[in-house]
Amino acid sequence: MCNNPNHTIHRHHCHHGWDNANAPVLRIAPGETVEFETVDSSGGQLSASSTLADMATLDFSKVNPVTGPVFIDGAEPGDALKVTLVSFKPSGWGWTANIPGFGLLADQFKDPALHIWKYDPVGMAPALYGPGGRVPLKPFTGTIGVAPAEGGLHSVVPPRRVGGNLDIRDMTVGTELYLPVEVAGALFSVGDTHAAQGDGEVCGTAIESPMDVTLSFDLVKGANLCFPRFRTAGPVTRHLDAEGYEVTTGVGPDLMEGARAAVSGMIDLLTARHGMSAVDAYMLCSVCGDLRISEIVDMPNWVVSFYFPRVVLS
Amino acid sequence: MCNNPNHTIHRHHCHHGWDNANAPVLRIAPGETVEFETVDSSGGQLSASSTLADMATLDFSKVNPVTGPVFIDGAEPGDALKVTLVSFKPSGWGWTANIPGFGLLADQFKDPALHIWKYDPVGMAPALYGPGGRVPLKPFTGTIGVAPAEGGLHSVVPPRRVGGNLDIRDMTVGTELYLPVEVAGALFSVGDTHAAQGDGEVCGTAIESPMDVTLSFDLVKGANLCFPRFRTAGPVTRHLDAEGYEVTTGVGPDLMEGARAAVSGMIDLLTARHGMSAVDAYMLCSVCGDLRISEIVDMPNWVVSFYFPRVVLS
Repeated sequence: MCNNPNHTIHRHHCHHGWDNANAPVLRIAPGETVEFETVDSSGGQLSASSTLADMATLDFSKVNPVTGPVFIDGAEPGDALKVTLVSFKPSGWGWTANIPGFGLLADQFKDPALHIWKYDPVGMAPALYGPGGRVPLKPFTGTIGVAPAEGGLHSVVPPRRVGGNLDIRDMTVGTELYLPVEVAGALFSVGDTHAAQGDGEVCGTAIESPMDVTLSFDLVKGANLCFPRFRTAGPVTRHLDAEGYEVTTGVGPDLMEGARAAVSGMIDLLTARHGMSAVDAYMLCSVCGDLRISEIVDMPNWVVSFYFPRVVLS
Repeated sequence: MCNNPNHTIHRHHCHHGWDNANAPVLRIAPGETVEFETVDSSGGQLSASSTLADMATLDFSKVNPVTGPVFIDGAEPGDALKVTLVSFKPSGWGWTANIPGFGLLADQFKDPALHIWKYDPVGMAPALYGPGGRVPLKPFTGTIGVAPAEGGLHSVVPPRRVGGNLDIRDMTVGTELYLPVEVAGALFSVGDTHAAQGDGEVCGTAIESPMDVTLSFDLVKGANLCFPRFRTAGPVTRHLDAEGYEVTTGVGPDLMEGARAAVSGMIDLLTARHGMSAVDAYMLCSVCGDLRISEIVDMPNWVVSFYFPRVVLS
C-alpha cells in the first residue's frame, strides 16, 4: 500500500445509479492506489452558500453521484474486492438537511431544513452547530461499492449485497473493506463522502461534504462473501466518547419502532435541555448519535438505544 | 450519593416475574442507598461446577429472579425513579449457554451448550475462553426495573416501558438510570447481573454471574418518560476497542434479518479463522460483540453491523 496514488479520477467521471454496463473510466491491477475526486451527495446542487430556498429546487435524479467505475484486473464473481481507505482530503464545507419524505421520522418532520457547515479541513477541529454545539469530525465514504450482477440501472439510494450506499460511519482512514464481486472487473465506484455521521444516519443525511479519497485495491480470490465486511484500524468512537453518553431507549417487539422511539426520546431531551428546535435536534442526532441494538433476544420485546455523545453539547 | 449502603437486601428476598401486588421487602426515602444481593439468572440451578448435563434439568419457571421489591417513599405514577449504579461485588464465576429455542439464531443452534467462566473478582482481568480468547469484563445489571401498572403477574423475560430485562450492557458503575414509575412507591427490583455482554446479547445469555450491587435512589417528579433513559459516567467501549474491530454486515429491508445475517457472518469468520466451533463462536459473540444499526434511512434497505473487538482474540 502506498500513499501516492497511481491514478486520479476526476469528479466529472461520475455516474448516477449502478449499472454493470457502465464503461470503466480506469483499469488497474491489484495492488494499485487510486485517488478519487467526489461530488457531494446533492450532485453539486448545494454549496457552502446555499439557503433553505435551494432545497425547493433540488432535482433528485442528480443526487448521490459516484466516481468511477474502476475495472480491477482479475476480479471475478465470487472474489472479494479488498479496498483499503488510505487517506481523505476534506473540502472544509458540508450540509445536513431534513428532506421531506426521507429519514427515520419523516412522518414527524415534514418541512425541509438545511444546515451549512464550515470546518477546518486541515486541523479538523469539531464543527460548530448553533450555540454550543461542537461535532467531532471523522470523514468517511457513505457510498462505496461494486456493480451488481443483475443487469440494468439500479437506484443508488438503497445499499445492496455488493455495497453501495452503506452509510457506515467507520468507512474511514485505515479501514479495510471487503466487497463481494459479482461481475468481471468488479466495477468499483465511490462517493457520498461525509465529514461525520452517527450510526443510523437518522435524519437521512450526514455532514454531506465533498472530498478527495485515496483508496488501494486488492483481491481475495474465491472469498464468497454474503455481504460486505470490514476491519477497522483501531478504536471507532474515541473522538466522541470522552464525556460519556446520554441514552434514550425504545422497548417493544419491532426494531424499527424501537429505533423511532429512541430517537424521538433524544429529540425531546435535547430540545428541553438545550432549547434547540426539534428539527435542529433531529439533524444533530443524525451527525453524531448512534443507534444500537441493546438486546434482541428477550422475546417478544427488543431494546434499541440511541447514544448521544455528551461532548457535543458540554 | 454514598458508597455505604443504608440497607442490604439478601438474595432470598427475590421474586419471579413482575406483579404490583408483590409486598415490598424494604421501604426507603429518596436519597438512600441499598445493597442488593442477587441470584444468577438460572435462579441458582447452575453453579461454577455445572456441566452440560445440568442444562437438561433446568426448570424455566425458576429463571431470572430479581431481588426486591423496594418501595420508594413519594414515588408516584408519572415520576421517574433515578437509580445510580454505585458499585458491584462480582462473584468470580459465571455461565454462558445456548438454550434451545432462545437466541437470535435459535433456528440454527438447536443443541444446548454451556460455558463456565472463572474470573478474578478483584483484579477483573479479562476472562479466558478456550485457547486464546480473553474477554474484557464490565459488570452490569441485566434486569433492573419497577412494577408495571397493569395488575397480575408478568413474565420477567421481556423488558417493558418500566424497564426490567433490558440487558443493556452499559447499566454499569456510574450510570444514572431513569425509569418511568407506574405505581405508588415504584416497587423497584434488580437481578440478572452479568460480568460482560455485547450489544444484542445475541445467543440469549451473557456472562451470567451473581454479584452484589449497590444502588442509590432518587425521584424526578412528573418526568413523564415514555421509556427508560440513562446517562453513562464516561466512555463505554474503551475496555474493548484498543485493537479495533472485525465487522460483518447484513443489508436488506428487515432489521431482524439484517442482524441475523451480520451475526451469522461473524460466526463464519471466527470459525474459519480461529478454528472454534460455531456454537462457541456464537456464545463468544454474545458476550463481547455489538449489534449496531449503521443506517436506517436508505429506503428500502437498512444496514445492521456486528462489531467484534479484535482484542478478544489477538
